[in-house]
Amino acid sequence: MARFLKDRSKAKGLVPGSLVLIGRQKMDQPVIQLITYDKNNLLEESVDSVSSIQQKLSADKVNWINIYGLHDLEMIKKVGEEFKLPSLLLEDILNTDQSPKYENGENYDAFIMKILHQEKEANRIQAEQVTLILGENYVLTLQERKGDFFEVVRERIRKNKGRIRISGNDYLAYTLMDTLVDNYSILIETIGRQVEDIEDRLFKTMDSKIVEEIYRFKTELNYIRKAVRPVREFITTLLRTEDSFFKEKNFAFLKDLNDLTVQCAEAVEMYNSMTSDQLNIYNSNMSNKMNEVMKTLTIFASIFIPLTFVAGIYGMNFDYIPELKFRYGYLLFWVVILIVGGGLLIYFRRKKWL
Amino acid sequence: MARFLKDRSKAKGLVPGSLVLIGRQKMDQPVIQLITYDKNNLLEESVDSVSSIQQKLSADKVNWINIYGLHDLEMIKKVGEEFKLPSLLLEDILNTDQSPKYENGENYDAFIMKILHQEKEANRIQAEQVTLILGENYVLTLQERKGDFFEVVRERIRKNKGRIRISGNDYLAYTLMDTLVDNYSILIETIGRQVEDIEDRLFKTMDSKIVEEIYRFKTELNYIRKAVRPVREFITTLLRTEDSFFKEKNFAFLKDLNDLTVQCAEAVEMYNSMTSDQLNIYNSNMSNKMNEVMKTLTIFASIFIPLTFVAGIYGMNFDYIPELKFRYGYLLFWVVILIVGGGLLIYFRRKKWL
Amino acid sequence: MARFLKDRSKAKGLVPGSLVLIGRQKMDQPVIQLITYDKNNLLEESVDSVSSIQQKLSADKVNWINIYGLHDLEMIKKVGEEFKLPSLLLEDILNTDQSPKYENGENYDAFIMKILHQEKEANRIQAEQVTLILGENYVLTLQERKGDFFEVVRERIRKNKGRIRISGNDYLAYTLMDTLVDNYSILIETIGRQVEDIEDRLFKTMDSKIVEEIYRFKTELNYIRKAVRPVREFITTLLRTEDSFFKEKNFAFLKDLNDLTVQCAEAVEMYNSMTSDQLNIYNSNMSNKMNEVMKTLTIFASIFIPLTFVAGIYGMNFDYIPELKFRYGYLLFWVVILIVGGGLLIYFRRKKWL
Amino acid sequence: MARFLKDRSKAKGLVPGSLVLIGRQKMDQPVIQLITYDKNNLLEESVDSVSSIQQKLSADKVNWINIYGLHDLEMIKKVGEEFKLPSLLLEDILNTDQSPKYENGENYDAFIMKILHQEKEANRIQAEQVTLILGENYVLTLQERKGDFFEVVRERIRKNKGRIRISGNDYLAYTLMDTLVDNYSILIETIGRQVEDIEDRLFKTMDSKIVEEIYRFKTELNYIRKAVRPVREFITTLLRTEDSFFKEKNFAFLKDLNDLTVQCAEAVEMYNSMTSDQLNIYNSNMSNKMNEVMKTLTIFASIFIPLTFVAGIYGMNFDYIPELKFRYGYLLFWVVILIVGGGLLIYFRRKKWL
Amino acid sequence: MARFLKDRSKAKGLVPGSLVLIGRQKMDQPVIQLITYDKNNLLEESVDSVSSIQQKLSADKVNWINIYGLHDLEMIKKVGEEFKLPSLLLEDILNTDQSPKYENGENYDAFIMKILHQEKEANRIQAEQVTLILGENYVLTLQERKGDFFEVVRERIRKNKGRIRISGNDYLAYTLMDTLVDNYSILIETIGRQVEDIEDRLFKTMDSKIVEEIYRFKTELNYIRKAVRPVREFITTLLRTEDSFFKEKNFAFLKDLNDLTVQCAEAVEMYNSMTSDQLNIYNSNMSNKMNEVMKTLTIFASIFIPLTFVAGIYGMNFDYIPELKFRYGYLLFWVVILIVGGGLLIYFRRKKWL
Repeated sequence: MARFLKDRSKAKGLVPGSLVLIGRQKMDQPVIQLITYDKNNLLEESVDSVSSIQQKLSADKVNWINIYGLHDLEMIKKVGEEFKLPSLLLEDILNTDQSPKYENGENYDAFIMKILHQEKEANRIQAEQVTLILGENYVLTLQERKGDFFEVVRERIRKNKGRIRISGNDYLAYTLMDTLVDNYSILIETIGRQVEDIEDRLFKTMDSKIVEEIYRFKTELNYIRKAVRPVREFITTLLRTEDSFFKEKNFAFLKDLNDLTVQCAEAVEMYNSMTSDQLNIYNSNMSNKMNEVMKTLTIFASIFIPLTFVAGIYGMNFDYIPELKFRYGYLLFWVVILIVGGGLLIYFRRKKWL
Repeated sequence: MARFLKDRSKAKGLVPGSLVLIGRQKMDQPVIQLITYDKNNLLEESVDSVSSIQQKLSADKVNWINIYGLHDLEMIKKVGEEFKLPSLLLEDILNTDQSPKYENGENYDAFIMKILHQEKEANRIQAEQVTLILGENYVLTLQERKGDFFEVVRERIRKNKGRIRISGNDYLAYTLMDTLVDNYSILIETIGRQVEDIEDRLFKTMDSKIVEEIYRFKTELNYIRKAVRPVREFITTLLRTEDSFFKEKNFAFLKDLNDLTVQCAEAVEMYNSMTSDQLNIYNSNMSNKMNEVMKTLTIFASIFIPLTFVAGIYGMNFDYIPELKFRYGYLLFWVVILIVGGGLLIYFRRKKWL
Repeated sequence: MARFLKDRSKAKGLVPGSLVLIGRQKMDQPVIQLITYDKNNLLEESVDSVSSIQQKLSADKVNWINIYGLHDLEMIKKVGEEFKLPSLLLEDILNTDQSPKYENGENYDAFIMKILHQEKEANRIQAEQVTLILGENYVLTLQERKGDFFEVVRERIRKNKGRIRISGNDYLAYTLMDTLVDNYSILIETIGRQVEDIEDRLFKTMDSKIVEEIYRFKTELNYIRKAVRPVREFITTLLRTEDSFFKEKNFAFLKDLNDLTVQCAEAVEMYNSMTSDQLNIYNSNMSNKMNEVMKTLTIFASIFIPLTFVAGIYGMNFDYIPELKFRYGYLLFWVVILIVGGGLLIYFRRKKWL
Repeated sequence: MARFLKDRSKAKGLVPGSLVLIGRQKMDQPVIQLITYDKNNLLEESVDSVSSIQQKLSADKVNWINIYGLHDLEMIKKVGEEFKLPSLLLEDILNTDQSPKYENGENYDAFIMKILHQEKEANRIQAEQVTLILGENYVLTLQERKGDFFEVVRERIRKNKGRIRISGNDYLAYTLMDTLVDNYSILIETIGRQVEDIEDRLFKTMDSKIVEEIYRFKTELNYIRKAVRPVREFITTLLRTEDSFFKEKNFAFLKDLNDLTVQCAEAVEMYNSMTSDQLNIYNSNMSNKMNEVMKTLTIFASIFIPLTFVAGIYGMNFDYIPELKFRYGYLLFWVVILIVGGGLLIYFRRKKWL
Repeated sequence: MARFLKDRSKAKGLVPGSLVLIGRQKMDQPVIQLITYDKNNLLEESVDSVSSIQQKLSADKVNWINIYGLHDLEMIKKVGEEFKLPSLLLEDILNTDQSPKYENGENYDAFIMKILHQEKEANRIQAEQVTLILGENYVLTLQERKGDFFEVVRERIRKNKGRIRISGNDYLAYTLMDTLVDNYSILIETIGRQVEDIEDRLFKTMDSKIVEEIYRFKTELNYIRKAVRPVREFITTLLRTEDSFFKEKNFAFLKDLNDLTVQCAEAVEMYNSMTSDQLNIYNSNMSNKMNEVMKTLTIFASIFIPLTFVAGIYGMNFDYIPELKFRYGYLLFWVVILIVGGGLLIYFRRKKWL
């Protein structure tokens, strides 16, 4: 289960800024990849150690360093030294519970965000943390494990699609964030479609699975909201930050990203209120059904219980029950039965129960 | 069903700013119409291609270009080139999921809004996207399909009603937006009338259709809110934007439009809270009914079940049941029955169940 | 029924600023009255036509023009010409759905407000629109129909009570607005008293009329809120508007009016939350009652149904049922019955159902 | 019952600023007391008339004038003249419905606040209005009736406790306000303790009195909120008001008072949400109980009704019922009964109803 | 039980600023400890009296004075004199109900915060108040009783972990606050895990313990929210306060603390809304179960009650019941029974109750 706050007991009582991975180790060996490109050149290489990675960066090209795996604390420390990142930031990178946030350092802009994906089998949303660090001449991404989430961006770089090869590091950072938010919107859409599909079943069936699904959607929307909302806020902050590494000519992209994020946040709220409405409606329908069931029971019981009583009377063995001797006693019995039964039927019809 | 977020899978992994139509293709062939007018002249013509449309525009007249159909991406691209629109805006135009928004570009003001109409048969609100672009000497509208929504405006131009023929491009843009918001208010009024009509049935009938209707109204109000709310915000932004193409002398119209939008938004909130109240009341009524049903059952069952037991006793075939031999046994039986039954009746009356 | 949004179909597709009455015509012939007064003089006259009304106004006196009836569009147009009111304002005057609003024009301050009154028979709140226009040397009020709502103010002028005869046009406008808000507070008090009265019945009776009343109060409070809330906002705006026709020496009155409006708004919210609480409590009580009913049924049925079964057994006609031949069979039967019945009673008492 | 809005019919149609007491007359004769003190001197005297009270005030001492009883309008008017208070303020003093407010006049600071006390017998919160007016050299308090609420302050003055005797008029005003807010916090604590006590009963008993209590607490918290919330706002305003009679050296006290008020407001919100939670929980528990009751009924009825039917069959008097002749008919009957009954028991156990 | 507002009756009517302990005395004898350290030296000593503690402080070292136990008012007074703390602050220190707050004095920064810990046996959150005072050359902490809460910090100092020994008093104050907030996040995580665990049981069992747990979590989250929310606010204030004793170079730590606090506050809101959702879902499930129970009862009763009636008829002892004489009467009876029973079964299946 994707927990909101992971087990922090490891971190308890630690010096602030001391490094510890909060969350599970998700792969064996950390992997470091470097992609360097400009309009005409593209170099992808795998790097063994971060120690001397600064020398590999080309000042006039875009340098994208991918790091997968966060459990090698020594390596993370070296990353910090190499790129002059403060220990508090490193701590945040390792705390995979960290809410999304933006930090404007002297020599970097750091973005902590979440990769959300819906596990098919578990029908649950899983969150992975990804940290984007944009420096003067590099983009550094740190993920919990190797995945193909950013493969679309790498493909775009390789195939030289769009403006990515002719734009700078900040555009790459934007592209990565855009990929993340785009992913949120697809996820929301998937859930939204399921929410809207419930609508069609809501008035046709009383299947109690609906309640379970509604609850699941509510929980998932909660998780997504938690990933999306801070992004909206930090883009606003970013746009106002004067000394960020985002060039102003790329602000239009950030604004567009902001619009998409706002749209996501609104869709989450809207689907959340739809699920609440659906739950209310389900309960109303349930009451309706219950009422119908109770009416049926009441009509059956209220008609036949008195009649059974009458029949019981003439099943008694008293020595002297005059009605039993009447010539038309049995006939009379039926007349009484029909009158009483019919009267009750009319009574219930008057009450509009029939 | 009008979905909030349409299928974005087509857009997944695309370069930001690359063009793809999100939403269904709603007509075969895109259509382009140009209406050019001033106080004395009016020219309506159909245009084959956007390539050279700039030359057809008269600098001292109002030029209204209608484009219907968004699936011809080549054409949209040409529109972008012709009017110098950035690719991010073109992407927004094609993303028919786009929340309403206002964008103030260097050479244009762009407004993305929704045409809402209630489908008779489906009893559902359908949203179509319409983009209004106001430039130095033109108004450009892009719709998903050919419709007669703006026909009232065209009629007004043709018949020279009001001030439209003596006002500029900005007044035309305002008129179009006003037509859209006016349409919202008519839609809200239609729903509002139905909501208020439910009120009259709420205490008369327990028809479970009411729940279904309330849910439908809630959903529709949700959709309308989503179309209205951003408009309120962007008009405020527009009024504060200094370099927009709206002339200050027309600001009074924008303020009036703003008032109407605020009124719409408030009516949506009010009707939404009314439907919530109605659902609560319906549930209370349902409980009341259920209570009444249960009381009826309880009274019938609680009176006749003990009596039937008594009758059962004297139907037993024990060799020696002294009461059966009593001379007035049967009479006594009736006395007991009437006392027990009467006692229970008094008991239930005391409990105010009768 | 007082609808929130009236039938706008008449207005559909009209040129913005074109005149059409939205709402019913409420009287036959429009009536125009002019009251001119200063400290020493008072002149009340009925005026036939608005065409030359400007000449009748005395620059150094207070001039109050009452217009009743809005359906004579020609007259409204003339009023606009005479007092130089823009057509958008005239449109608002005629749109009797208009939310309360304040408009600061160059030569006037316009206030659109609502007269609310509770119809005795219908038990419904009716809203009438009243427009107050304060100019350099006049106060113009436009109402939907002739009523005696402002008669108290006229009486005060006639009898020279308070400071009205020695104050200017702005004080008259304030007095009229104060009369309107005072009326809201009386209405809220009336509803509030009824809401508080429900409290006393809430725990004594399960009368389903309570639900109906609560719903009615909720709806009425909704309507009042809609009339009150914008007033609060526009007084704040008015106090900040520098070029209004309200003299600063009268600002203390406006602030006092503001306090009263805030108090009304708060009372509306408070009573609304009280009705919500009451509905919840009613439902809880209903559940309690239902529970009691069900317990009664269950106790009766669960005790007597098994006993009836036992009696049924010995009513069977098998050739050989040994118990029937026992000497003390019948006595034994009663012992069994009493043990079973008593056991069940103890069982239910243990469950605290008795 | 403490009504929120008292009967305003007396005030209807009155000239704004004209004096009328809204609320009941709570004592026979108004009483005026004057306490004059400085570090070394203390004089308490009862004053007959306000007319010449100004002369009795010592410029270099603290002068505290207590007025009890508001129904003598002539006296109130004289107070207004003597202390140069505007008639709008006098009107507010007399309107005992007035929401708490702060008014900064030219020659005074006026504070309208509420004394809340819980009536033992009625178990209801009663509100009394108290007006504090702080002038250059006096503090004037006006109360609806003589009470000992401020006796603690008088004691403190008499016994020269704390800094009161060495501080000025503003400190006295602060002390009085602090006494009022302190009283709110004690009241909230009393209710809060009762709310928390409900918690312990919530899972032990289904007593419907709990609902009644919860409702009462909700209503009381509503009343307290209404008294507290404006105080929080007006202290903030007071701290920003530059020309108030509060000396800056006493601002620390005001800030402390503000903290206490904020704490009260938060506790009110917290207890309110706790009562809402409790009501929800109560309803859930009620449903649980109902479910248990229904299960009991269903198990009893569903087992014995079929069995009774079987017994009924063999009680029939058909000439030829072969089973009745069987040698082991009766034994077989019991076998069938036990199988059917046992089967149903197993069925209900499988359903986890047992 | 951790009450929100403790018994203030002791404080009633006291002079503001006079000292009284609100809350229970939690230990016998107050204890004072002094830890003085710099990079190279560390001195821990126990101090008998606060009177001359100022002399023991080293200007160029970090001085941390721990005081446990607040009931010795004389000692608290002396602390106030020694460190020149105003009496209002001392009052706040003693009022263990005090909401968390930050106060910026001339010669100190004071932070009032809460230590929260979950009592194992009582399953309740207990709050203890801790006051942190940061002066020019000291950090003073006052706690209600001796506990080992800050032992982790002392260990860090002793073992010279992290930067604590090379940083100043402000860093120590930050470390203490960080320890507190870290503790909140661990507590929230513990509750959050339990909340998420409920999820798994929610659809499997109807155990009414779930409701009790949900209520407990809601209450606990309420208490935590009350401790966390003000911290978020006061850190923001602190960051804006220019003359605080926090050095700007340590602001990054405060920002990090702020992030953690925001994260805590968000997690509280999220878990609170999750518990609300769970309660709703529980109720829906309960309704579902009830419906199922009722259906079972209705089906059994509605099928067998009519059949029992039929059997009752032929158990009657009328002299002349022709059917009883029929040759195949008994067979016919069974045919009727099977038709009626089967018909009802089909009827219920049609209704989808089976």
